[in-house]
Amino acid sequence: MAEEKLTSRAEDFSEWYNQLVIRADMADYAPVRGCMVVKPYGWALWENITSFLDAEFKKTGHVNAAFPMLIPLSFFEKEKEHVEGFAPELAVVTHGGGEELEEKLAVRPTSETIIGHMYSKWVKSWRDLPILIVQWGSVLRWELRTKLFLRTAEFYWHEGHTAHASAEEAKEEMYRILDIYERFCREEAAIPVITGTKSETEKFAGAHTTTSIEAMMWDKRALQSGTSHYFGTNFAKAFEIQFLNKENQLQYAETTSWAISSRIIGAIIMVHGDDQGLVLPPRLAPTQAVIVPIYKTEAEKSKVMEVADRVFLELKAAGIRIKMDDRDNVSSGFKFNDWEMRGVPVRVEIGPKDVEKGSVALARRDRPGREGKTFVSQTDLASTVNGLLAEIQASLLNRATEYRDANIHNVQTYDELKEAVKDGWAFGYWCESRECEAKVKEETRATTRNIPFNQPSETGTCSVCGQPSHRKVYFAKAY
Amino acid sequence: MAEEKLTSRAEDFSEWYNQLVIRADMADYAPVRGCMVVKPYGWALWENITSFLDAEFKKTGHVNAAFPMLIPLSFFEKEKEHVEGFAPELAVVTHGGGEELEEKLAVRPTSETIIGHMYSKWVKSWRDLPILIVQWGSVLRWELRTKLFLRTAEFYWHEGHTAHASAEEAKEEMYRILDIYERFCREEAAIPVITGTKSETEKFAGAHTTTSIEAMMWDKRALQSGTSHYFGTNFAKAFEIQFLNKENQLQYAETTSWAISSRIIGAIIMVHGDDQGLVLPPRLAPTQAVIVPIYKTEAEKSKVMEVADRVFLELKAAGIRIKMDDRDNVSSGFKFNDWEMRGVPVRVEIGPKDVEKGSVALARRDRPGREGKTFVSQTDLASTVNGLLAEIQASLLNRATEYRDANIHNVQTYDELKEAVKDGWAFGYWCESRECEAKVKEETRATTRNIPFNQPSETGTCSVCGQPSHRKVYFAKAY
Repeated sequence: MAEEKLTSRAEDFSEWYNQLVIRADMADYAPVRGCMVVKPYGWALWENITSFLDAEFKKTGHVNAAFPMLIPLSFFEKEKEHVEGFAPELAVVTHGGGEELEEKLAVRPTSETIIGHMYSKWVKSWRDLPILIVQWGSVLRWELRTKLFLRTAEFYWHEGHTAHASAEEAKEEMYRILDIYERFCREEAAIPVITGTKSETEKFAGAHTTTSIEAMMWDKRALQSGTSHYFGTNFAKAFEIQFLNKENQLQYAETTSWAISSRIIGAIIMVHGDDQGLVLPPRLAPTQAVIVPIYKTEAEKSKVMEVADRVFLELKAAGIRIKMDDRDNVSSGFKFNDWEMRGVPVRVEIGPKDVEKGSVALARRDRPGREGKTFVSQTDLASTVNGLLAEIQASLLNRATEYRDANIHNVQTYDELKEAVKDGWAFGYWCESRECEAKVKEETRATTRNIPFNQPSETGTCSVCGQPSHRKVYFAKAY
Repeated sequence: MAEEKLTSRAEDFSEWYNQLVIRADMADYAPVRGCMVVKPYGWALWENITSFLDAEFKKTGHVNAAFPMLIPLSFFEKEKEHVEGFAPELAVVTHGGGEELEEKLAVRPTSETIIGHMYSKWVKSWRDLPILIVQWGSVLRWELRTKLFLRTAEFYWHEGHTAHASAEEAKEEMYRILDIYERFCREEAAIPVITGTKSETEKFAGAHTTTSIEAMMWDKRALQSGTSHYFGTNFAKAFEIQFLNKENQLQYAETTSWAISSRIIGAIIMVHGDDQGLVLPPRLAPTQAVIVPIYKTEAEKSKVMEVADRVFLELKAAGIRIKMDDRDNVSSGFKFNDWEMRGVPVRVEIGPKDVEKGSVALARRDRPGREGKTFVSQTDLASTVNGLLAEIQASLLNRATEYRDANIHNVQTYDELKEAVKDGWAFGYWCESRECEAKVKEETRATTRNIPFNQPSETGTCSVCGQPSHRKVYFAKAY
């Protein structure tokens, strides 16, 4: 509950985040090192995220399935880069049913290996392709420095795993999914993201190509918010996923994988939140509007509640996710703070004067204080509130886009680059050498985020070494 | 695919089941001992089950949340009966991030302990109660004798965990949930279940009272299909879940937990399936109707497909989960067998004669062969098909109820009991002593299933020992 003020973002952004997650009732620390408990309010937000994505995946022909959470350790050895990437992060089951296991099992950190194994059993002919499977669940990567949603040992996600008859099809799939991710962020989360290709250094362990969506947080650090990988035949060769093609020849399948995790909740918090608490985009908010009835006497209460109850039913019937805050043990001011902390987009205040005038007060969360408050008629209130929700949704996206664009700096020289990443992103040409990338990382802690698909038509010179370069990249400090 | 005939149920029910699960494409064996892969068709069925239950839980005020999959081993020690029940089944993580852990962690077999721990942090006052949380996910209990869906190490479920201010409220909750389970089985799965209380021997480790729903499979064995437990203050005391009541006194909370698992899929298979394959209740079937266009020449094909495409869109628009089987590499006969194997409730056949006559043939899965086939007009087809789906749903429930009732035998003597459980269930008075229960189990392998809530008004004598008894119980061999 929102009794004390939050530490402000400007004062200590990390501390602001930590306090906010707890006080907005999103998550809690678990008694298992590195793990979190996602509380009902946080999980309701996650459900809104997952139901949008699940519907999009189904529309594009994907189906869900479930593979074991335990994977034989030996499976990780089969793809060289994959094991190097994941071995240090594994949690290992050594005992089961009171006995030591002959074959040790890892709690899945990601499921390419076990799914690859199953696909090798299922795929025989080109008629069996494509396989377009998504798994929803949690995975575990050993992690001791917990930051709720952003960095926990166990986290929640979907992982898509597809197998195709040709490289073209598999690449198309990778891009199709990244498009869904970009659209989800823009339309649902009100987060503008940059789509592009990860550098060789930053790509997924075992991938041919990794594409990502990158978002800018309020502190101007970047958050990789989703990835879509094309594996070529790397995993197909490691796990023997082969099929007879139309020419009756044995051929390796081309595979992809892709994911958005519960980390995206961290992004939503850090892009939109303010010093009063969460600010949730209406399309994802578990509660879109809350009614706070205001009265002093019993006579006032009965008049106000009559209107409040009617408004509640009206908004609910219109499909608005609405709550009535009729708690009688806390003040209206406490309630205002409480719902602001939880980021509910619209507050509907109804007092005795509103009853007389046939009005209500609407307070929008994205503009705290008087500026965001309007008095509107009770007539057609559902459509007024729906209109306001749409306006808030659009306004959040605009604000985040302007903020991001104002903090991305086109750079041409290394000095400009170093200056830019101190408090923003640098966008400059890069020769794509590991040396220049490593130098930037070492000297500024900024990493390449991605090489965006949208590139200028002209070529240029590397902002680090000055060599001729034909693509620009984003450099930024990242979570 | 359905090329060879299934082993018949009468010949070898267990073998029939094993073949069917694989050939209906529901699940596969995983490369991890004791584990399964739930394939997309099986998972789509599970999604229909979960979405009904999730909606019911939400209607009754429950919310979802997520707790860690790993639980410190020490947590299990806190409730004496609980640790005795679960310790032998635990999978234990001893290493994480390349190092041996100081505190060993169990993969959750059920989450009373870790959720109890969190509730003790969250519950301070009567105003914090009730807490009504459901977690969807998987759990793991070490198990080597795999039977897909029925007995696997990892399985899928929801687990509800609630905390209340009074025993009355907690018991009400236990019964409320069991009612939802019973209604789900009856209305959605077309499975008549018996609701009642488990014996002291058969109850959940740590429970004060366990209630269950029990279903009869085709082989007349019983399957416990869901449980709802009242813990009294057992877990609250073990985990210190205390609150200040309205009188400002510190009091232990009263808790419950409850679950239906992916085992219910095994019940659906074993109650309704026949020698041709699965028979899915229409309300849960991932595909409710399949269109098989029938033609020989190209000219026929174009006429037939025109109608088939129109019918497809019409049925889809009416909300029927419909598929078009326009595969050109297999025969119609193959398709019929294939969809019968997968248990699709209605097959819509459209051939050249149907095009001429403005008709289609509807074949209902629950009555294979000519008997279940009717020719109907293309006009108003969606409402005809919807009517047929409702009829099939009702008919499956009737058939299962009649079958069950015909195979439950009222018994008065021990001889009658022994005879009854050879090939059915015995329903008789029981003195509720562990001795009589143990004797029956040892001599017949039948166990007490539950003491039904519906009891005759008169008392009687124990069908095992002859002592006066006031309640009847079901004895049966069980999965």
